[in-house]
Amino acid sequence: MPHSPQEKKKVLARVKRIRGQCDALERALEAGADCGPVLQQIAAIRGAVNGLMSEVMEAHLREEFGQPAASEAQRAARVAEMSGLIRSYLK
Amino acid sequence: MPHSPQEKKKVLARVKRIRGQCDALERALEAGADCGPVLQQIAAIRGAVNGLMSEVMEAHLREEFGQPAASEAQRAARVAEMSGLIRSYLK
Amino acid sequence: MPHSPQEKKKVLARVKRIRGQCDALERALEAGADCGPVLQQIAAIRGAVNGLMSEVMEAHLREEFGQPAASEAQRAARVAEMSGLIRSYLK
Amino acid sequence: MPHSPQEKKKVLARVKRIRGQCDALERALEAGADCGPVLQQIAAIRGAVNGLMSEVMEAHLREEFGQPAASEAQRAARVAEMSGLIRSYLK
Repeated sequence: MPHSPQEKKKVLARVKRIRGQCDALERALEAGADCGPVLQQIAAIRGAVNGLMSEVMEAHLREEFGQPAASEAQRAARVAEMSGLIRSYLK
Repeated sequence: MPHSPQEKKKVLARVKRIRGQCDALERALEAGADCGPVLQQIAAIRGAVNGLMSEVMEAHLREEFGQPAASEAQRAARVAEMSGLIRSYLK
Repeated sequence: MPHSPQEKKKVLARVKRIRGQCDALERALEAGADCGPVLQQIAAIRGAVNGLMSEVMEAHLREEFGQPAASEAQRAARVAEMSGLIRSYLK
Repeated sequence: MPHSPQEKKKVLARVKRIRGQCDALERALEAGADCGPVLQQIAAIRGAVNGLMSEVMEAHLREEFGQPAASEAQRAARVAEMSGLIRSYLK
């Protein structure tokens, strides 16, 4: 998950970008960069990880709720699962 | 929102609890409490505010997706709105 | 802590402001406000709590490191304590 | 920064670990892993990035305040700089 090729591609592009940011941070640390710029790079990585988490949750929402549920039970199960994900990761 | 009396009651109880935590923090500060315990109280408030935000988003999810959508357009609009809320507040 | 009258006053003003934001949120919930504006108010409270935590840590830093340490041992103890606070609350 | 070989080594080890976590996440996504485990992996990366930020700030604190300042002006400048870093990144 996400299962559609387009969603998957977007999410993978974000992961690759975060890895690139880690590479740049490693080079900056090796080169002895100052603390201020290093913290800025880390904060940018933190922002990118939050963006990735949001993207995955939004993709899941679209996949689970973009089509009508097959039954009341399925609808209730989807709502309970999504609710649990929000509770776990909204922090 | 949340509109059901039960959801509203739960959310209001959380808000009142946070206000009570602020009152206790104010008393601790007035009494000259040490930095460590004061930061613990503030961290507890932060956790309670995150819990409140999660509760409101979960209530909204239940209200929006707990019933079948009346149309494709309504379903798409609900998904787009919920997706925007996740993107805005998951950080 | 913070112990200087000025630092204490600034911190208390922030706590009172957060309580005022809780009051406004309670009124909005009682009045049946929509989910979007309610989440915005909660996000503003979250930001204010983070600002308060930062203010208290900065006040502590100024009080601990604004004067020379009386000894090597005191300096080391202050650094260890401040380091622990950063580790505990930077998240 | 951090400048001591030991601090630098610890920080670089954290960056490499985060990159390894990104690699594992990419493999899970390519393999079509479910949303729940994927979000758990992302949350673990988020925690690791916060730990890295804390480590860098603590190293900076040790380097700046582990030795007596050469003058009042230097002490004040160090406190102001560290205070600004706390304000910027404690969120």
